[in-house]
Amino acid sequence: MQAREVVLERVKKAKEASRVLARLSTEVKNRALMTMADLLERKAELIKEENAKDLECGKEKGLSSALLDRLLLDDKRIKGMADGLREVAALPDPVGEVVKMWKRPNGLQIGKLRVPLGVVAVIYESRPNVTADTAALCVKSGNAIVLRGGSEAIHSNAVIAGILQEAARESGVPAQAIQLIETTDREAVFHLLRMEGFVDLVVPRGGEGLIRFVAENSRIPVVYHYKGVCHTFVDRDADLDMAWNIAFNAKVQRPGVCNAMETLLVHRDVAKAFLPEMARRFEEAGVELRGCPKARELVPQMKEATEEDWYAEYLDLILAVRVVDSFEEAVDHIHTYGSGHSEAIVTTNYATAMRFLQEVDAAAVYVNASTRFTDGYEFGLGAEMGISTQKLHVRGPMGLEDLTCCKFVILGQGQIRE
Amino acid sequence: MQAREVVLERVKKAKEASRVLARLSTEVKNRALMTMADLLERKAELIKEENAKDLECGKEKGLSSALLDRLLLDDKRIKGMADGLREVAALPDPVGEVVKMWKRPNGLQIGKLRVPLGVVAVIYESRPNVTADTAALCVKSGNAIVLRGGSEAIHSNAVIAGILQEAARESGVPAQAIQLIETTDREAVFHLLRMEGFVDLVVPRGGEGLIRFVAENSRIPVVYHYKGVCHTFVDRDADLDMAWNIAFNAKVQRPGVCNAMETLLVHRDVAKAFLPEMARRFEEAGVELRGCPKARELVPQMKEATEEDWYAEYLDLILAVRVVDSFEEAVDHIHTYGSGHSEAIVTTNYATAMRFLQEVDAAAVYVNASTRFTDGYEFGLGAEMGISTQKLHVRGPMGLEDLTCCKFVILGQGQIRE
Repeated sequence: MQAREVVLERVKKAKEASRVLARLSTEVKNRALMTMADLLERKAELIKEENAKDLECGKEKGLSSALLDRLLLDDKRIKGMADGLREVAALPDPVGEVVKMWKRPNGLQIGKLRVPLGVVAVIYESRPNVTADTAALCVKSGNAIVLRGGSEAIHSNAVIAGILQEAARESGVPAQAIQLIETTDREAVFHLLRMEGFVDLVVPRGGEGLIRFVAENSRIPVVYHYKGVCHTFVDRDADLDMAWNIAFNAKVQRPGVCNAMETLLVHRDVAKAFLPEMARRFEEAGVELRGCPKARELVPQMKEATEEDWYAEYLDLILAVRVVDSFEEAVDHIHTYGSGHSEAIVTTNYATAMRFLQEVDAAAVYVNASTRFTDGYEFGLGAEMGISTQKLHVRGPMGLEDLTCCKFVILGQGQIRE
Repeated sequence: MQAREVVLERVKKAKEASRVLARLSTEVKNRALMTMADLLERKAELIKEENAKDLECGKEKGLSSALLDRLLLDDKRIKGMADGLREVAALPDPVGEVVKMWKRPNGLQIGKLRVPLGVVAVIYESRPNVTADTAALCVKSGNAIVLRGGSEAIHSNAVIAGILQEAARESGVPAQAIQLIETTDREAVFHLLRMEGFVDLVVPRGGEGLIRFVAENSRIPVVYHYKGVCHTFVDRDADLDMAWNIAFNAKVQRPGVCNAMETLLVHRDVAKAFLPEMARRFEEAGVELRGCPKARELVPQMKEATEEDWYAEYLDLILAVRVVDSFEEAVDHIHTYGSGHSEAIVTTNYATAMRFLQEVDAAAVYVNASTRFTDGYEFGLGAEMGISTQKLHVRGPMGLEDLTCCKFVILGQGQIRE
């Protein structure tokens, strides 16, 4: 079959299943998630066998050890997937909530009722646990899912999707609600992005190249973020102890993720008191610093930062450092170079804190905390589908509620329009 | 200048202005809207002069009298525009609302703060009052607007936009927040749709051709509806008096709009009691009926409906009529042929009403009322930017609140991630 036909068949089945899924009770959906979790654990040996095939291919293709590690499924990771499904089962079901309801002068009662989006497509790379995580969120929110994983994880994704489908069938959820596009044909992604009559949302997860391809070619709404160039601004009124801790945590605790700090901004009035000790701590942790001229006056061993450094998402133990003359200069820097992901200020000044919250335009804006908290689980949303730096529908971590929309329901007693 | 450069200059200025606009107080924004309203009325003569140029061109080009009427601005319509601006000024300001805020176990307070989207582009045809209506909604919600009207209304749009800018400047709102792309070059729309770094939302308003072009070519999120194929289902348990009134109103009160009924579905158990009298009333009002075989058995003078009739958005005094054997058949018909706009049931049966509300997937689902109410003003949202039959961000009438999004604000006391 041609790639387009394969994709069309999958999305049609998903759309059909989505009508059934939208009406399922919370009980049935939760039972399916618990059964999926149990079955993943019971079939751990099978999963590991299939995963070994992907690892074998990956080694032959010369994948880096970091990529091979992301691909690996061992008992611990399989248990992690299963526990993730159980956690989603424990979350409240967003479907069916009447968000608000009001009465018009003519007696019409108008309400907003939360319903599933319909069909969600996920296009992802490498980590096969995404298959289980995103399928769980979609089932719980009453959405059918179309999965398109990377070719490097094809065996792992197929065995996991098969297990989820089996568990769904056993629990009274249509197995068709979980569709995997198994063809590794690159064309398939392109065709999927044109299925606007069948798919309601596309979520790409992976490298910037994949995300740009999806964003530029999709006729279906896409929720995504390209990158996280996150800043911490140490204000003139900062508590320096707090600032050292927060900045250190934001850079060092896990440098390879999108909510890690990439640039540190320091108000000139505290730069002398703050920067040398900060640099000492970072250097101890193996962080390479790249500074503006003023920062390098205070910490001469810093490398010189170039214009590219202000735009950089290092995802590594490298940090750009800039001394700013004012609050305004800090906000302007974030506006110019930031990616709209997560931005923090450290300050004891109430008015400055409020201005930062208001004036910085990003998915998550922090006062006196590490940017590393931008995460569905840390925010208390449960699991997340991804993180959005766009503005429509959802900004920041995308949780269960963001997989729904509201339709208007209108209760009348025979009203007609005059 | 090339079309692309013109567009780029406009969107850059809009983006710059949007930062200022986002921070304006409600008072300043309202004062600007009131000043705009006054200035439109004071400059009515100038508006009519410029409008006359468009009408002249339109006549030369041979526009239909319906189109020329849509283009016309007289004193009454200018006053209507001004009053519209005053109504928007009276609406509550959505910006700055904290939608919810909760506390995490580690003490972090996490809230969702409503902020403007940024820059909204409106691409529209014919009616020049759209210029004032959409600009007012954008200013009130703290968004900059980029307007791209049709070439047939270029003089009218330019004079209105100029007046709005003048009033903005006088009131402390940056005039740059209102940008008009005056080039009639068709390329300009295409370039505008590629300005994803500067424009946050595109709203197309006009014929299906324009909307399809925008939806298929935009890299920016688009909110739109292609058409409204709205149904009224007269259930077996309908109050027939109510059903006659509602169906008549939904078709006849204003047939040329998207929330008018296009297909009437009648349960077979009441068809005999309902249809002949319904047909009599419609025929009296000059409505042409096109029915399925069962409907034609009861009303033999009906024309025969073809498959195309079930898909048709007549926007005229024509109605498709179908007798269905069951509730399920009615819902399936709506699922197959509907456009996800507005759907109504007439019934006295509580369980049937609840099932209809749940199972019909549309922007607005009605029990015992005319579909003609789908409108921002009728729903109590104030004015509307348009109506969405998509699922992301907004379904149904798009009001002020839908021109905003929520960013996360996080208040900490030095929290770091373990």
